[in-house]
Amino acid sequence: MEEVRLNLAERSYSILIGEGLLASIGSILQERQIDGRILVITNPTVARWYREPLIHSLQSAGFSVQVAEVPDGESYKSLEQASFLYDTLIDGAYDRKSLLIALGGGVIGDLTGFVAATYMRGVRFIQIPTTLLAQVDSSIGGKVAVNHPKGKNLIGAFYQPSLVITDVTTLKTLPEAEFNSGMAEVIKHGFILDENYLRLIAGEYELIHNLDPEILSFVVSGSCRIKSEVVEQDEKESGLRAILNFGHTIGHAIEAVTNYTYYKHGEGVALGMLAASQIAARTGRLKEADLPKNLLKICQKFKLPTKLPGLAIQEILEAIKLDKKVESAKVRWVLPEKVGIMKITSEVPAEVITEVLVEMGGLR
Amino acid sequence: MEEVRLNLAERSYSILIGEGLLASIGSILQERQIDGRILVITNPTVARWYREPLIHSLQSAGFSVQVAEVPDGESYKSLEQASFLYDTLIDGAYDRKSLLIALGGGVIGDLTGFVAATYMRGVRFIQIPTTLLAQVDSSIGGKVAVNHPKGKNLIGAFYQPSLVITDVTTLKTLPEAEFNSGMAEVIKHGFILDENYLRLIAGEYELIHNLDPEILSFVVSGSCRIKSEVVEQDEKESGLRAILNFGHTIGHAIEAVTNYTYYKHGEGVALGMLAASQIAARTGRLKEADLPKNLLKICQKFKLPTKLPGLAIQEILEAIKLDKKVESAKVRWVLPEKVGIMKITSEVPAEVITEVLVEMGGLR
Repeated sequence: MEEVRLNLAERSYSILIGEGLLASIGSILQERQIDGRILVITNPTVARWYREPLIHSLQSAGFSVQVAEVPDGESYKSLEQASFLYDTLIDGAYDRKSLLIALGGGVIGDLTGFVAATYMRGVRFIQIPTTLLAQVDSSIGGKVAVNHPKGKNLIGAFYQPSLVITDVTTLKTLPEAEFNSGMAEVIKHGFILDENYLRLIAGEYELIHNLDPEILSFVVSGSCRIKSEVVEQDEKESGLRAILNFGHTIGHAIEAVTNYTYYKHGEGVALGMLAASQIAARTGRLKEADLPKNLLKICQKFKLPTKLPGLAIQEILEAIKLDKKVESAKVRWVLPEKVGIMKITSEVPAEVITEVLVEMGGLR
Repeated sequence: MEEVRLNLAERSYSILIGEGLLASIGSILQERQIDGRILVITNPTVARWYREPLIHSLQSAGFSVQVAEVPDGESYKSLEQASFLYDTLIDGAYDRKSLLIALGGGVIGDLTGFVAATYMRGVRFIQIPTTLLAQVDSSIGGKVAVNHPKGKNLIGAFYQPSLVITDVTTLKTLPEAEFNSGMAEVIKHGFILDENYLRLIAGEYELIHNLDPEILSFVVSGSCRIKSEVVEQDEKESGLRAILNFGHTIGHAIEAVTNYTYYKHGEGVALGMLAASQIAARTGRLKEADLPKNLLKICQKFKLPTKLPGLAIQEILEAIKLDKKVESAKVRWVLPEKVGIMKITSEVPAEVITEVLVEMGGLR
């Protein structure tokens, strides 16, 4: 078992990564003296595989456990579902000392975290991420939220979990395209902060692809370490944490113009990183000529999209503006200088973006 | 102008108290370099008197200001109204650097604070409390929340404002019964922590009653100092802060059994403090024999209720249990030993509570 510690004064917590941890969660909580009545929040897709082992482990350790299921899908990361969970908690007489457990991907983690942040002014919660994306990204760092019909994550808080428990064996039930989507964030972590980690991912492609538990633990804990390092320095995204948005400016826009149905999040991020590396090249910021080519190669290895066939560039540009309209006045581009060094700038000429998107197959 | 500083590391803020501050809010914000597009949240009752002067002051100082009105009343401290405010913010393209201003009593302050805590993972907000209750209590300390149909304040957060600005002249438009209700919290602050403050309030009854601005500034800033001291030591109510609940156990129950329509919050608190002091006497905890009599006298001065005619004791006892059922397993009584020294205990025999309530006029 790997343990990554995220240090944030009294909000510090551990991220445990390993093989088969789900079956020992009850004793993990006991050892760490984490108590309280438990409400597990999950969805039917995840519950099918992991509800019983989780409950069994918790009950064997003497915990009182109830489960609430939310339908599967991004559209259920809503204030309505949060409201349903408040009702469940109140009807079950859960008090301030209760413990919520998020069992699932990013939607479940973000929703559970939001409810934990706001139920009775804050109860503890634990993340048990079951998708690669959630394991390497959304379960870490305390960004919790629900969506608003006009935009993602508009209602939320910074609220850290008490513990993150990642069982890499849960990745065996994850569809391959979802796994690859998660790899986009892994690749991102390598590019923004750690060349050695990046080299290893590229080199161990076969083992990763075959879900070798040891290499998966290594990959996930490596990403957790990188993300923790960034979050420790800038918990509330006032500066440095923005580098985690590498690939997300165009990525989000591509997700939006395809109504969040065609591309998975990581696929959008892959396209966004490729675009950002080309923008860096064309604006003279790139100091490592091979970077775009290396990024392309590794994305291809993990079957991530690298072209934009059929997407109207004008719509992408408008989606970028719209996204920022509600978030902040300026678009903040995260552009690579070299592996491990990102620059944040608002100054990218529209024609450069257009040229890059044309080259990637976008329609003028 | 009085300034009370609430020290909570990077969440520290000032509470400004004075006469006619509403007209200089624009320049106060400028001096303190508080900027951002402003959404003022208020209700029609308060707006009628203070909307125009506030907007005028802000606009004269160059601020961009919009106003959102929520209907007047406790039932609008709801997730539905929070949702309406999220829509207003999003439709108005308010970003993370926006500033919310709560102009009104406790309902407006708590609701605005909750929205500020959760919109885009937290934006700044300023409290401009216009009721005595809000000025001496709810605007200070960062407890923000909305109600759930099954209980008050069940959905909320600890989220501190950036500034509290109290203009004591707004108390001139406050109905007398509301003013007296606020005095119950003032009296509470004196009893739990500061004998000199208490003596002064009792002595200067005439000036307070006549809304003399100088004495009001003194009274409000005194209460703010006492409450700040408690909050600084225990921001999230893990211990000491519970003493602020003196009078609230029975007070809340009385409010609940009368459907929150008959007694004002402070009236419930007054009855609760009187009951708690009698409970302390009957359980041998009281070390200052005159305390119940002195409490009774000062409550009478401010026309606060001291009897419970027509209320069924059984219902009050059940409401106490029900209240705690969702908040924490045990009822925590705050009982006075002497002025300035409170004891917290779960051990109060039901028959003692009944005896005290019978003596106060409750029905067996």
